Amino acid sequence: MSELVGYRGPSSDILKKSKVMIGDLIEVATSKTKYNGVLMPRYEYADDLHVVIKLSNGYNIGIDVRNIQAIKRISVGEKPHFTAPPKPLIKPNLPNIAIISTGGTIASRVDYRTGAVHPALSASDLYSAVPELSRYAIIDAEVVSSIFSENMTAEYWKLIALKVAEKVRSGFRGIVVTHGTDTMGYTSAALSFALAEVPVPVVLVGSQRSSDRPSSDAALNLIGAVLVASKAPFSGVYVVMHSGMSDDVLSVHLGTKVRKNHTSRRDAFESINIPPVAYVKGGSIGEVMDGLPPRSDSKDFAARPDFDTRVALIKFHPDFDPEIIDYLTSRGYKGIVLEGTGLGHVGGYCNSQLRLAIEKGVLVAMTSQCIWGRVRMTVYDTGRDLLVMGVLPLEDMLPETALVKMMWALGNTRSVEDAKELMKKNIAGEIGYRSDLERRPAR
Amino acid sequence: MSELVGYRGPSSDILKKSKVMIGDLIEVATSKTKYNGVLMPRYEYADDLHVVIKLSNGYNIGIDVRNIQAIKRISVGEKPHFTAPPKPLIKPNLPNIAIISTGGTIASRVDYRTGAVHPALSASDLYSAVPELSRYAIIDAEVVSSIFSENMTAEYWKLIALKVAEKVRSGFRGIVVTHGTDTMGYTSAALSFALAEVPVPVVLVGSQRSSDRPSSDAALNLIGAVLVASKAPFSGVYVVMHSGMSDDVLSVHLGTKVRKNHTSRRDAFESINIPPVAYVKGGSIGEVMDGLPPRSDSKDFAARPDFDTRVALIKFHPDFDPEIIDYLTSRGYKGIVLEGTGLGHVGGYCNSQLRLAIEKGVLVAMTSQCIWGRVRMTVYDTGRDLLVMGVLPLEDMLPETALVKMMWALGNTRSVEDAKELMKKNIAGEIGYRSDLERRPAR
Repeated sequence: MSELVGYRGPSSDILKKSKVMIGDLIEVATSKTKYNGVLMPRYEYADDLHVVIKLSNGYNIGIDVRNIQAIKRISVGEKPHFTAPPKPLIKPNLPNIAIISTGGTIASRVDYRTGAVHPALSASDLYSAVPELSRYAIIDAEVVSSIFSENMTAEYWKLIALKVAEKVRSGFRGIVVTHGTDTMGYTSAALSFALAEVPVPVVLVGSQRSSDRPSSDAALNLIGAVLVASKAPFSGVYVVMHSGMSDDVLSVHLGTKVRKNHTSRRDAFESINIPPVAYVKGGSIGEVMDGLPPRSDSKDFAARPDFDTRVALIKFHPDFDPEIIDYLTSRGYKGIVLEGTGLGHVGGYCNSQLRLAIEKGVLVAMTSQCIWGRVRMTVYDTGRDLLVMGVLPLEDMLPETALVKMMWALGNTRSVEDAKELMKKNIAGEIGYRSDLERRPAR
Repeated sequence: MSELVGYRGPSSDILKKSKVMIGDLIEVATSKTKYNGVLMPRYEYADDLHVVIKLSNGYNIGIDVRNIQAIKRISVGEKPHFTAPPKPLIKPNLPNIAIISTGGTIASRVDYRTGAVHPALSASDLYSAVPELSRYAIIDAEVVSSIFSENMTAEYWKLIALKVAEKVRSGFRGIVVTHGTDTMGYTSAALSFALAEVPVPVVLVGSQRSSDRPSSDAALNLIGAVLVASKAPFSGVYVVMHSGMSDDVLSVHLGTKVRKNHTSRRDAFESINIPPVAYVKGGSIGEVMDGLPPRSDSKDFAARPDFDTRVALIKFHPDFDPEIIDYLTSRGYKGIVLEGTGLGHVGGYCNSQLRLAIEKGVLVAMTSQCIWGRVRMTVYDTGRDLLVMGVLPLEDMLPETALVKMMWALGNTRSVEDAKELMKKNIAGEIGYRSDLERRPAR
């Protein structure tokens, strides 16, 4: 029975005996309870003692075969299929929006017969999966990569930035970039710098639950992203994701100020140290934060897509080993972003190594592992010592944004001093100057 | 004029000309505005172009002498003094509480004449500074260290743990540990493990604003900590700090589940993945979370205060350099806590180095940089690959708690396998099993 992909030994035996196949809706009875779900294939390295089913809430569970008393089929599985694509209602005045797919849950559908993830991103796929898109835009879809976002690197940031710039020059009125959520905050920061002064909105969007799950946020997020790309009065790089647990409001986060703050919730993304710049509700964009760069009709745009990846992010902790700093210096690192404690401190036992690194030309900057708030290194002696030796305080910049910005600054300058000046300059809202915005917005 | 500590050149000149001294309340007029504040001494490495005053809100500002039009004295400075200590109203039934001071803002008063921070921690100092303490307890005060908390290390954790155990054996009904806020979350985790099964409450407390500032949270936090130490029905290690911006509610956080989430706010500390175990309001402890270990009268207690500090915390990011893992392995590291992305991932380009580290006997475990939520490495191939090679998923454990726990586990076992088993065991509530508690509490 080749249908029982990945099962062997005891787990295969019990499934064969029960005459069920991958994709069937089955009931599994244990001594304690009964589970209903779709029988899933297993991963090649999986053990032989568990039967895995997808519950109706979308989660997979593994049930130990030694606890299983009976398995019965409730219904035969069907291959998942999209509904027939309706003819898109292309209204003459709809803007042209480019969707650039990089990979991740939102751009995929999981074939439960193989467990494989397939990109589903022709324009026709998109219209058929999410027919509402045709209300807002004429979609052009293009796949630039198909990777899990934990495998995202500066090389891909460059590809994406160049592709966005090309689309802008081709006259698209907005760009949507679909992306895995794991590193979407890093990429949104990277694009914010590489695409500084882009004349249209560039909207990153992801999904915390894959589109084969009933609780998927994929469709609503994508619709919201296309709506922002086509209608927003502002330009720049943003992330659009669920605002809360309900399905009716999306947040528009500034690309340099957003972070994934929960492993699984649909509202995992939060703006840090500022509120979201806008909310999307009922098909429209509400009140927009002051001071955002306006959208323009210019097609004259070039990216600055280079990053120097010889930059480390160091999260300081008690008993942090300062010789790691020496190691990075000797390894040719050009920058170190410290994630210090509190207002921007590290243990005094790191000072001599930091001093040496700076003397050797390494750009060292300070952020806070508190995530919220602002570094302020003049309050205590420890911070002042670091300032004196040349550690650059990065105000209220997120550590992740600081890392990406330093890679970009070193990739676009010829000297550490120039890179340092670029770090101090507010390029894409990464530095917030208004102290009344330092607070976490009420939730 | 030796009183103008730290001033030289132009800034010293203008102060001399204006006949003001450190500690004076002065008015500084610039072309744009006027500032009122107390003239502060300057740090030895300070430049010679700024006059620094402490504003009435407690913050210091530096004013460029080139913009100063005039300085005049409003009133002469006085040395700060405590009010005369009232005779503590020691009621016969009050419990004996030990306060152990480690340093940090809460335990200090800043002498504005010298800028030096002095520990102010005899019992009589405490009663006089915070007379309310005498309502709740008979205080015994002892200084074990006097350090900024960014200089806290496992060596100090051991000192503190041994001192707490000594106080428990001496019959104290509760222990308060005053601590700088920067690394208080790490220390509360360290004590949670080193003092596992302690029979009384051990309460860490800090202050985000020093006690010389009008907005200081020091007194209320200390009163709350003493109240919890003396009255709480539970035992174990906790952190007590302001719940919100108002001055009437404190949160009691489980020691393994608490994090400093803002650089400067008084309510910077938050419980992660669980609500606070209790709130303190109006001098009493409200409803208490189920399932906490009860307080007992036992005096039979010994700490397990050893930590092996050869453990690294690695925050993964795009283009993370996997050779750092090789370096740590070759340097004799015994453990690595990964702060992965999302549900617990790192780029596949780190896999061979991680596999090698594990083969060489390094204990490698996974947490998430999302901070909130739970790692779940069975959802995507990337996570399953890591599981197969032996990376230990740490559920909803905070990265900082995981780091400290691994130091402790390796310090109290003889083999990596034993340490791994200890990591999986829920010692002090560091692993939450209830999925309904995974959400961030409403605020």
